[in-house]
Amino acid sequence: MTTLDILLFLVTQKDLPSNARATARLSLFDWMTCGLAGVDEPVAQAVRTTLAAEGGHPVAAVMGAQRLPPRAAAMANGTISHALDYDDTHFAHVGHLSVGVYPAALAAGEEMGASATDVLDAFLVGAEAAIRVGLHLGRAHYDRGFHQTATAGAFGATIAVARLYGLTPDQTRAAIGLCATRASGLKSQFGTMGKPLNAGIAAANGIECAAFARAGITSADDGLAGPQGFIPTHADAPEPAAAQSDRFLFPDIRYKLHACCHGTHAMIEALRPLAPAQIAALHLRTSPRWLTVCDIKEPRTGLEVKFSYAWLAAMVLAGMSTASDRAYTDALAMDAALAAVARRVTVTGDPTLTDMQAVAEITFASGEIRTSAHDLAAPIPHDVLAASLQAKAQALIGPRADMLWQAVAQIDRLSARDLGTLLVAS
Amino acid sequence: MTTLDILLFLVTQKDLPSNARATARLSLFDWMTCGLAGVDEPVAQAVRTTLAAEGGHPVAAVMGAQRLPPRAAAMANGTISHALDYDDTHFAHVGHLSVGVYPAALAAGEEMGASATDVLDAFLVGAEAAIRVGLHLGRAHYDRGFHQTATAGAFGATIAVARLYGLTPDQTRAAIGLCATRASGLKSQFGTMGKPLNAGIAAANGIECAAFARAGITSADDGLAGPQGFIPTHADAPEPAAAQSDRFLFPDIRYKLHACCHGTHAMIEALRPLAPAQIAALHLRTSPRWLTVCDIKEPRTGLEVKFSYAWLAAMVLAGMSTASDRAYTDALAMDAALAAVARRVTVTGDPTLTDMQAVAEITFASGEIRTSAHDLAAPIPHDVLAASLQAKAQALIGPRADMLWQAVAQIDRLSARDLGTLLVAS
Repeated sequence: MTTLDILLFLVTQKDLPSNARATARLSLFDWMTCGLAGVDEPVAQAVRTTLAAEGGHPVAAVMGAQRLPPRAAAMANGTISHALDYDDTHFAHVGHLSVGVYPAALAAGEEMGASATDVLDAFLVGAEAAIRVGLHLGRAHYDRGFHQTATAGAFGATIAVARLYGLTPDQTRAAIGLCATRASGLKSQFGTMGKPLNAGIAAANGIECAAFARAGITSADDGLAGPQGFIPTHADAPEPAAAQSDRFLFPDIRYKLHACCHGTHAMIEALRPLAPAQIAALHLRTSPRWLTVCDIKEPRTGLEVKFSYAWLAAMVLAGMSTASDRAYTDALAMDAALAAVARRVTVTGDPTLTDMQAVAEITFASGEIRTSAHDLAAPIPHDVLAASLQAKAQALIGPRADMLWQAVAQIDRLSARDLGTLLVAS
Repeated sequence: MTTLDILLFLVTQKDLPSNARATARLSLFDWMTCGLAGVDEPVAQAVRTTLAAEGGHPVAAVMGAQRLPPRAAAMANGTISHALDYDDTHFAHVGHLSVGVYPAALAAGEEMGASATDVLDAFLVGAEAAIRVGLHLGRAHYDRGFHQTATAGAFGATIAVARLYGLTPDQTRAAIGLCATRASGLKSQFGTMGKPLNAGIAAANGIECAAFARAGITSADDGLAGPQGFIPTHADAPEPAAAQSDRFLFPDIRYKLHACCHGTHAMIEALRPLAPAQIAALHLRTSPRWLTVCDIKEPRTGLEVKFSYAWLAAMVLAGMSTASDRAYTDALAMDAALAAVARRVTVTGDPTLTDMQAVAEITFASGEIRTSAHDLAAPIPHDVLAASLQAKAQALIGPRADMLWQAVAQIDRLSARDLGTLLVAS
């Protein structure tokens, strides 16, 4: 099957694998958590103000506001939920899946009066489509300067909406063709509000392209990989074979569980099972690429703590949570007890480690010595992951975490509109 | 100056050259004509239906409908006015300027309560910006498969709207950075409704990026030509020097005056001064590339007449108008008098001619022999062009042509809203 064939198959695929659906539930919970945690960010306020000024029928929920037309809601929610950059990542896709695809699926689901489960399934096939398009675009696409979250993400959003709109095969093909001429997104936005906006762009493109195709607008027969299609114009070394798989790739998705630099997460996971602990010394080995990123020896602010192996190690060994953005206060950088532990931490680069691995050699105060390693690529048991995501949500949004968890647990009884109602301003 | 500097300068440039403003008036007239002529096309209806379903504040006119929010109006009018593919072309830019830039300028002008002259000037600087970005992207961009009308056009639309919104220099820079991550458009849409939609996408992107920047959304410092900016990611052989010019390039714009294949226009212009005429023979020399395109010897339908040198020559020599799409009936292909003249026409390819040139050697019934040549690249005197565009408009939209012409003639007395009112359904 070509990648286009895979996308056309996914749109109406029945009997979606149960492990993938279970993971999609976790992504829904984590996506809503990140969104509610991000509603007061400046970029969230700016995008809401702009879109609310247009007005329109109140069809689809906007995080932290009221309802707007589906396209506007998708744009807003994609941006808002990526504002903290704390959402899920799929390393094969290369990008953030939930923030590009869930906003489109939820808005289209509300528009169509769909069930919450329909939204979940539409997200799942859309996310799988985005992964396959991302793999086909290949590393050369990312290296050229494109942001897969936005580009491959738009195709995923389009497939999710096409499923919920019940498009015919010809309409779906047109929607993909229109997405080819509409999808965009550059990495040059990193470090600016343009980065979260890229996720909103992906989601909005999904609504727009599927809606235009539903209204009868035609497009290229194979806008994806055909002549002058999206892939030949946007990838210097496409990898069509990489897009082939007999299984759903979506369950390989990974979640951020700590509100600090990604380069420190493997160390944190290696140390967590040992805490709380009194140590005499800690020697950390990590990928050399992180040494210039997150090895600040004496952080002066809460922000710098997020990039400090020594300080974060001290926090974990003291049993402190690293999950909430709000934990990283400037006072933390002045904490004498943490500083005392941090001084016993040494860090070296080890070129045999991937950038998802870390090894900690710990000498306890008792004299005992232990080695603890972690690889972020290793699968996490579903119940352990669920508990971690709940702890993250508690840290980010407090009691509302329980409300979201209960909703996702009983998703079979909810409508898309019920999900939306969890997100709007009360 | 870098291309970015040029764009930042254009946004607030005063004392725009009068010849360029006069030509921008012709483009306004021709753009509104093409739009009103296209309102009943299927793609026009589909885009209006989709956008009207969103609702929203009735701020900006939609051709053939009522008012919608500015972004939606820009999307609709860009698509509608390009539906007939009869609008202006700028060969250096490579693309259609008015359909990408005027819809954004008019919608933003209505939103801001601007004058019609403000809209005209905003279009002019936006169009000039689009030309410069198009030149910087270079031929390699077009050859890779991108559609400058949509890509460079989005930057032009952004600059036009930035001027009308009165953005600060920092906001304008952000708007350009956001356009870099938002602009898109592929030639693979040609032959489908996705082609006119590309013009709507350009216009809508202009409104969206300027509005987000106005609301405070930040972006890359140089999204255009900086690292992983639009040009390095979308052009294999950028030509920054080509974007430099001491004069406005906009007045080099060209207009379609005949509703038939572009390859026949040079012949039609060469013959028009001689008509009506009785001929014994006509020998046409044209660029060899057109022989496989528009040399149908015995057309069977009105559509085939549009691609028939012989038939079109007979029409022109009989004094018939070639300006209206509706002139090309199937009955025309059966006309015995035209057929008799067409049989006296011979065509050969001449590799010394460009694809904008034609040479006709005519033997009149009187025995007189004359040669008449035309080059579409040659400038046309303003009054001749104005008369031709009025004749085109009469053929396309009948008496409404006079109404539009009067409005453009007294543009100094009108508001942006007055212009919009000329376009909405009565």
